[in-house]
Amino acid sequence: MLVPVIISVIYNENDLWAFIISALITTSFGFILETATKPPERMKEIQRREGFLIAALSWFAASIFGAIPYLIYGVFNHPVDAWFESVAGFTTTGATVLTDIEVVPYGMLFWRSFSQWIGGMGIIVLGIAILPRLAVGGMQLMGLEAPGPTTEKITPRIAETAKKLWAVYLLLSFLLIVFLLFAGMPIFDSVLQSFSTMSTGGFSPNNLSVGSYNSSIIDVIITIFMFIAGMNFVLLYWSLRGDFKRLTRNSELKYYFFLNLSVILIVSFELWSTIYPNFFEALRYGSFQVISISTGSGFSTANFDLWPSFSKWFLLMLMFFGGCAGSTTGSIKIIRIMVLLKKGYQELHKIIYPRAVVPIRVNAKPISPEIISSITSFFLIYLFIFLVSTLIVMAAEDLPIITAISACAASIGNVGPGLGEVGPAGNYAGLSSFTKVVLSFLMIIGRLELFTILVIFTPAFWRR
Amino acid sequence: MLVPVIISVIYNENDLWAFIISALITTSFGFILETATKPPERMKEIQRREGFLIAALSWFAASIFGAIPYLIYGVFNHPVDAWFESVAGFTTTGATVLTDIEVVPYGMLFWRSFSQWIGGMGIIVLGIAILPRLAVGGMQLMGLEAPGPTTEKITPRIAETAKKLWAVYLLLSFLLIVFLLFAGMPIFDSVLQSFSTMSTGGFSPNNLSVGSYNSSIIDVIITIFMFIAGMNFVLLYWSLRGDFKRLTRNSELKYYFFLNLSVILIVSFELWSTIYPNFFEALRYGSFQVISISTGSGFSTANFDLWPSFSKWFLLMLMFFGGCAGSTTGSIKIIRIMVLLKKGYQELHKIIYPRAVVPIRVNAKPISPEIISSITSFFLIYLFIFLVSTLIVMAAEDLPIITAISACAASIGNVGPGLGEVGPAGNYAGLSSFTKVVLSFLMIIGRLELFTILVIFTPAFWRR
Repeated sequence: MLVPVIISVIYNENDLWAFIISALITTSFGFILETATKPPERMKEIQRREGFLIAALSWFAASIFGAIPYLIYGVFNHPVDAWFESVAGFTTTGATVLTDIEVVPYGMLFWRSFSQWIGGMGIIVLGIAILPRLAVGGMQLMGLEAPGPTTEKITPRIAETAKKLWAVYLLLSFLLIVFLLFAGMPIFDSVLQSFSTMSTGGFSPNNLSVGSYNSSIIDVIITIFMFIAGMNFVLLYWSLRGDFKRLTRNSELKYYFFLNLSVILIVSFELWSTIYPNFFEALRYGSFQVISISTGSGFSTANFDLWPSFSKWFLLMLMFFGGCAGSTTGSIKIIRIMVLLKKGYQELHKIIYPRAVVPIRVNAKPISPEIISSITSFFLIYLFIFLVSTLIVMAAEDLPIITAISACAASIGNVGPGLGEVGPAGNYAGLSSFTKVVLSFLMIIGRLELFTILVIFTPAFWRR
Repeated sequence: MLVPVIISVIYNENDLWAFIISALITTSFGFILETATKPPERMKEIQRREGFLIAALSWFAASIFGAIPYLIYGVFNHPVDAWFESVAGFTTTGATVLTDIEVVPYGMLFWRSFSQWIGGMGIIVLGIAILPRLAVGGMQLMGLEAPGPTTEKITPRIAETAKKLWAVYLLLSFLLIVFLLFAGMPIFDSVLQSFSTMSTGGFSPNNLSVGSYNSSIIDVIITIFMFIAGMNFVLLYWSLRGDFKRLTRNSELKYYFFLNLSVILIVSFELWSTIYPNFFEALRYGSFQVISISTGSGFSTANFDLWPSFSKWFLLMLMFFGGCAGSTTGSIKIIRIMVLLKKGYQELHKIIYPRAVVPIRVNAKPISPEIISSITSFFLIYLFIFLVSTLIVMAAEDLPIITAISACAASIGNVGPGLGEVGPAGNYAGLSSFTKVVLSFLMIIGRLELFTILVIFTPAFWRR
């Protein structure tokens, strides 16, 4: 919270004190908690169940304390709005309840994007170093080749892995700032845009998002970096160290690339025949929107809510894809989609040859039935939560179906904008506080790969 | 085809010859096929692969020949329209391309409903006696206690089972006719209504469907019989023989009952607070529509397309449920939904106790991982085909998203009406021929539990 103070000072703005007071409140709270509680010796080692609680509580805590600056300065008057914006930040969702972004002071805008960048750092470590050990929804497939010492003690290894991955994250963020500066973007915007791109967050300092720069070079740079941010950071780490073999033999990356490429081509052709007379224009807007939604970034350069049903529906479906595991993207993720598609096809084969055993392979290695089962369960629960939440939202207020389902899909998938009222030309401000709370929970549940939150609500979790 | 001739004679209508000519064409075709082809001795016994081909081809053949009367008489001018209506009949879907039902002669109306009734007979036998042996999508769970001799030879057993189940089907159809007559429905309508109800088909001789009778007694009778038609016919058979123990210990039936009951209550409360000032009215229309959609009947007593988003969206979700396996309903079916829900919950337990083995039970018996895997694959493929078909339809014509997705959901789920343009107040006539063909294929694919059709398109199927 002290970082945005620098921005407030530079721009000589009056939001300075909001950050200083918030920082004091947060620090005091932490200090009190630390001195008041003292775990017994036997609980110094973090156990499996504590792992879940820590992951879940850290996102709740970050989003609650992160909302304080908005409230103190008065960006929002309602606590729910401030919390929603903060959750959308730390979960790297990027759904906003700001109706006019451009009247908000620089410090506050910086805080919005910075919270996404911090959230992104958290997710990379959580996804690569922690969740695989908790065996959540097939995440075991991830992080096996994560850099770091091969020690048995979990904590030093996580710290080592984190440092290496954060170096990659920092480097890429810095590179993107440089590229954007060269493309003519102002320095403040470049920094914020880089924060929100590398975290696939999607907050923008402009009402028209990336569309406000109206520059095809900027569009292309951001499209490429959104795609990179959707890659597995372990792979990015090894590539930066010159080990490209891991890139080429990674089947998730292949799927990620060809899936996005196909969707871009299909959507661009559709747009070419309907909205844009020029194919390259269709490709420019099509590819940006496809990558933005599929990686859960949520930037926009066009109001895709006005596109034909086909493209809108395809974008809505993409909200369930996400990028690679071990990236900052949310949603189901390509590795799971891949396994699910292979599982479906395997069954057809099984019906003809009931006795043949054909394993499902990822990176040319057969994966165990337990992991497959875990992935299908993840998918089922994802779908279940999504459907139940759409019903809850529609029961609470009579929103158009497309608005409600896209809001829920964009929240649980950490995408950001949806369609209709919550589309790229709208925002989440018009929804009721109840709906905003439901969507905030969806963002956190989605961000923490469902199980991390859900297990806490099972009776078995609290049993000795 | 000679049965509707009787109706044409009774009502002294000129559609008599359409049926006689169609019957002659069909018989000649069958006669030529039978005399021209002679299978070698070794192929007299039906093999696994032939089983798939026979099931698939019989529905295609029935729908193609069943379309001839419509074309000859001129109910439809376009062959695609006639085929669509015929497919919607034999698959018991009940989607119609008739814009004005009430101007069509009685004989033709009879043929529409009669085709559903015949289709229903086919489905009961297919679902209980044949598909379980082909191990399609977890259908092994079905038919284990089907009546009939416990012989090793498959054909006599199927014939025996079929006769017993058809007796139940006939009896219930007859009972429904009697009830409807007592409730004051004209005899012609009662017969047709009974055909379409017991087959959960949904064709009605009225433009306003069941709503045209405007009778709460008729609504209640049909609601109950739609519910019964959605039950497993093996259970109905044993119940009629006085063995009620099987009813009470059947977990699918419990789920089917309580799931529908909960949805009815939720939807009725929502309708009470929004559309209908009287709770009983809300309950009457709510329960009818919920049972009609969840069993895939597709009758309507209210234009639910005008209901609030919540109810519409809930009905759209119900299109994926269906009734019990071994009934005339289509879609995913309760037994699979049940296993999928249990599988999702099981995973939460597994995360906390990774080494605990808690089997998923159906009717108090643990079911094998192979069957669970088969059921999840069925679900994945169902969803995949549904999503791809929505994209194909929207790429072909720019329909509103809700119209397109509900048309596809209602077709693959053998429901009938959808929402929007294809809702209860509309029909499928306005769609392009291409879309109608896509939807017809969806109806057949859905009706034959996906795999029966899909395996035919795999290279492995044709390999020796």
